Amino acid sequence: MKKVFIYDTTLRDGSQTEGISYSLQDKINITQRLDDFGIDFIEGGWPFSNPKDKALFDYFQKNRLKKSKLVPFGSTAHPSNPAAKDKNLLSLLAAETENVTIFGKTWDLHVKEVLKIKLEDNVKIIADSVGFLNKKGRNVFYDAEHFFDGYKANKEYALKTVKAALDAGAGLIIFCDTNGGSLPWEIQEIIAEVKLALSIKNFGIHCHNDLGLAVANSISSVNYGCNHIQGTINGYGERCGNADLVTIISALQLKMNCSVVSAKKIEEITKLSYYVSEVCNMVHHDNHPFVGKSAFSHKGGIHIDAVIKNPLAYEHIDPALVGNKRSFVVSELAGKSTLVAKAKELEFDLDKKSPETKKIYNLIQELERQGYQFEAAEGSFKLLLQRTFNKYKTFFELLGFRVIIEKREDNRLISEATIKLKVEGKLEHTAAEGDGPVNALDNALRKALDKFYPVLSTMRLADFKVRVLNATGGTAAKVRVLIESQDADEAWSTIGVSENMIEASWHALVDSVEYKLLKEQKKKTKG
Amino acid sequence: MKKVFIYDTTLRDGSQTEGISYSLQDKINITQRLDDFGIDFIEGGWPFSNPKDKALFDYFQKNRLKKSKLVPFGSTAHPSNPAAKDKNLLSLLAAETENVTIFGKTWDLHVKEVLKIKLEDNVKIIADSVGFLNKKGRNVFYDAEHFFDGYKANKEYALKTVKAALDAGAGLIIFCDTNGGSLPWEIQEIIAEVKLALSIKNFGIHCHNDLGLAVANSISSVNYGCNHIQGTINGYGERCGNADLVTIISALQLKMNCSVVSAKKIEEITKLSYYVSEVCNMVHHDNHPFVGKSAFSHKGGIHIDAVIKNPLAYEHIDPALVGNKRSFVVSELAGKSTLVAKAKELEFDLDKKSPETKKIYNLIQELERQGYQFEAAEGSFKLLLQRTFNKYKTFFELLGFRVIIEKREDNRLISEATIKLKVEGKLEHTAAEGDGPVNALDNALRKALDKFYPVLSTMRLADFKVRVLNATGGTAAKVRVLIESQDADEAWSTIGVSENMIEASWHALVDSVEYKLLKEQKKKTKG
Repeated sequence: MKKVFIYDTTLRDGSQTEGISYSLQDKINITQRLDDFGIDFIEGGWPFSNPKDKALFDYFQKNRLKKSKLVPFGSTAHPSNPAAKDKNLLSLLAAETENVTIFGKTWDLHVKEVLKIKLEDNVKIIADSVGFLNKKGRNVFYDAEHFFDGYKANKEYALKTVKAALDAGAGLIIFCDTNGGSLPWEIQEIIAEVKLALSIKNFGIHCHNDLGLAVANSISSVNYGCNHIQGTINGYGERCGNADLVTIISALQLKMNCSVVSAKKIEEITKLSYYVSEVCNMVHHDNHPFVGKSAFSHKGGIHIDAVIKNPLAYEHIDPALVGNKRSFVVSELAGKSTLVAKAKELEFDLDKKSPETKKIYNLIQELERQGYQFEAAEGSFKLLLQRTFNKYKTFFELLGFRVIIEKREDNRLISEATIKLKVEGKLEHTAAEGDGPVNALDNALRKALDKFYPVLSTMRLADFKVRVLNATGGTAAKVRVLIESQDADEAWSTIGVSENMIEASWHALVDSVEYKLLKEQKKKTKG
Repeated sequence: MKKVFIYDTTLRDGSQTEGISYSLQDKINITQRLDDFGIDFIEGGWPFSNPKDKALFDYFQKNRLKKSKLVPFGSTAHPSNPAAKDKNLLSLLAAETENVTIFGKTWDLHVKEVLKIKLEDNVKIIADSVGFLNKKGRNVFYDAEHFFDGYKANKEYALKTVKAALDAGAGLIIFCDTNGGSLPWEIQEIIAEVKLALSIKNFGIHCHNDLGLAVANSISSVNYGCNHIQGTINGYGERCGNADLVTIISALQLKMNCSVVSAKKIEEITKLSYYVSEVCNMVHHDNHPFVGKSAFSHKGGIHIDAVIKNPLAYEHIDPALVGNKRSFVVSELAGKSTLVAKAKELEFDLDKKSPETKKIYNLIQELERQGYQFEAAEGSFKLLLQRTFNKYKTFFELLGFRVIIEKREDNRLISEATIKLKVEGKLEHTAAEGDGPVNALDNALRKALDKFYPVLSTMRLADFKVRVLNATGGTAAKVRVLIESQDADEAWSTIGVSENMIEASWHALVDSVEYKLLKEQKKKTKG
């Protein structure tokens, strides 16, 4: 098994993503998580240009990582001073790490038009910078920025820059497709030529996804001597993103027989992907290879039937290998056998031909037409099954609620909810304030139910999502609210749909609470 | 220039996406749009299994397309009857098209475990089915399902199935990587062997994206004789999706010198991508190669400086070629030169060193910390600039509002907003109902302003989005509301952020209205 080293730049290149902005704590959390997962190198950031990045290196000087090596990033020295006096290079030394990464210019266009210096001077700067870091005992990863574009434009010059870095003692050259515009066969041809010209055996690669080819270009390189792949979790990065390490690590380890992380750790990659998307506050893409919610989900009736017979029929790997799971989409396309299979997942034994099955099937179709989507709301789906089978005690009856949001002349804003319920024959009429209308409603509901069901204090709402369905309806659009709740044992998701987002939230809230109560009731009955 | 034919299956394989469900009108709209764009073949659906698909073919028998050829999809005949009596094949004939597509089984595992018939019988069924359609004058596209998996498992059998289709008169064989688990070099090797074994020159390819390689595998094949690529707009499709035609068409035409659509039409591909995502009600991914909102957006200060000097520095093509545009992200990472460049886009001449620039810069940083994101809300950003430069007359002053959402005992739900404003020294105090709280507020605001600014009746709210920022805050989470408004001339987007979603909506609403009023005022001053 070939060992391929993974170099993660989620914290540095990933922070260039439109919409991502890390706090220091975010960076610490992601670093620890990557260390736990077993990533070889973590590019912590650019300590010279960003005080937050400097603080990260300070933090991990005191709190050592288990496996990963934290690497600071910088550039070759500024043309105005020698390497030994360059603040950016000195900041790399100050990080006190074994390895440092610097990038240098390969493309003559950049030297002439961006740096605006002589071609020869850039070569000297590269040699001076790498040499300085090398003499200070650092292993230097040299990122040859725009390597492929530079090579296409001026082959001799591009090689000269890389040779300067090698001669000055660079430990590894990383060929960067910085603009992400290179095709797989171009990369393959250029690498073959370059390896010969420079007499190197191994190298690193750093790809961007502007042609949707970053994964292909990265993993193909392994066939030609690449043993170091740079990228980011989920492919975050400027423009179209960097090479997605989640897909790359899974493909290397599960499809290419490479050694990347331990077999046990690869099962945590789905969780890692979700975790990083949470910290970055980015939407996790359902169709993400290996780890997306839909990556092993089957909707077409023919496919579902086949997968029930043999999962290999429409799955390239066992989803459990990456900690993901198979699912069947409950949809109008899917038919009753899916419904039966899905119900079985939730421990309901449906008969494909029974009147109850037909009833549920029709009900789901009607609700889907209204905008419900049960694939993201299994909690509500389970309640739906339970309601249909009358395995369901009503915990409370809503008589009415009122929510008032008032912006007063003194600019104060208040949200107040009043709620009227009947619980165990008793009338509860109470009110609460909150941060916004849904929080007020949530608070009032809990207040009303508290003395009857004290167990509710052990659950909390973990996630709250609003999706506008027919956005073109403007402010009168229909909205779908998803709430994810959790207690010490599990998480469950519930749904509400309405043109009124308060009402949609209410339905999701009620399902969330009833799910919990039903669960506790079942525990008691069993106990 | 090599001609590559594009075969779009957005309507068929795309409909297998979790979350996509087309109405007949959606299908008609997408078909017409694809025709207008110049796609060669459009797979309209499976007329046998879906009445909506049948209706689509009926519709386009009466309303002919300009360029595209609509193709019906089906399978080889059911083992229980001969091709001539197979309802699925007969439904393909009934579609009255020049071309028809059927898929057949290549992988022995599927024949044995899914179809549960003898290997030889499957070969006969393929020959019988293709032969029947061929004799009826149809050009048959034969989709060899699971071709690569089948070839790896049982090379001879896989070849036998395809040979049966060819001998029976199939016009083109499409090699399908149905499970999306094949690596680029596997596909390349297998295709080389197969072309030799079957003596074919051209072929089609149909890839899925389970390894993130669908684009790479599709475009690479063109180097080995592929002249027909199947895929979907935006890569919609079951699991991780199909090969993304948006990226493929752009790459073929702009990077590989292939002839796909006209040079004028390729400039419309960004709009096509957005249009289809709108109809499918899917979120358009910002990092989508070529067409995403961020595909040519620059955030890092060094990158922005370089792109201002020469866009080639960090762009692999001119974004205008695909109808996209360059943008600079206004962010804490970006620095003042970005702000100046961005302001210039909006016709504000800022001086990098002036106190106003510093003031705006600090204000933006503060607002971003609160959760504002001006990259998606240029309307609000423009107002911010205008407010800072005092080029701004207050159109009205808010004294207060109140929104009541009430669920009554008779189960009726009402949303009512009252609003108190001062306009031109006059007090306006009015109320309105609506479909939900924001709609009520919108209605009340318009009612209050109507007699002062009748021009507001010429604008409408086109889009309304809610994003929960710190989702883990549960129902007390902060929300960001984006509103897109439009009139006959343009569209503009505005933003509001608050823990109270009603207040966030209010801010976005007010910005939307003020943008319009300011624009009209400017027109008058000029006129």
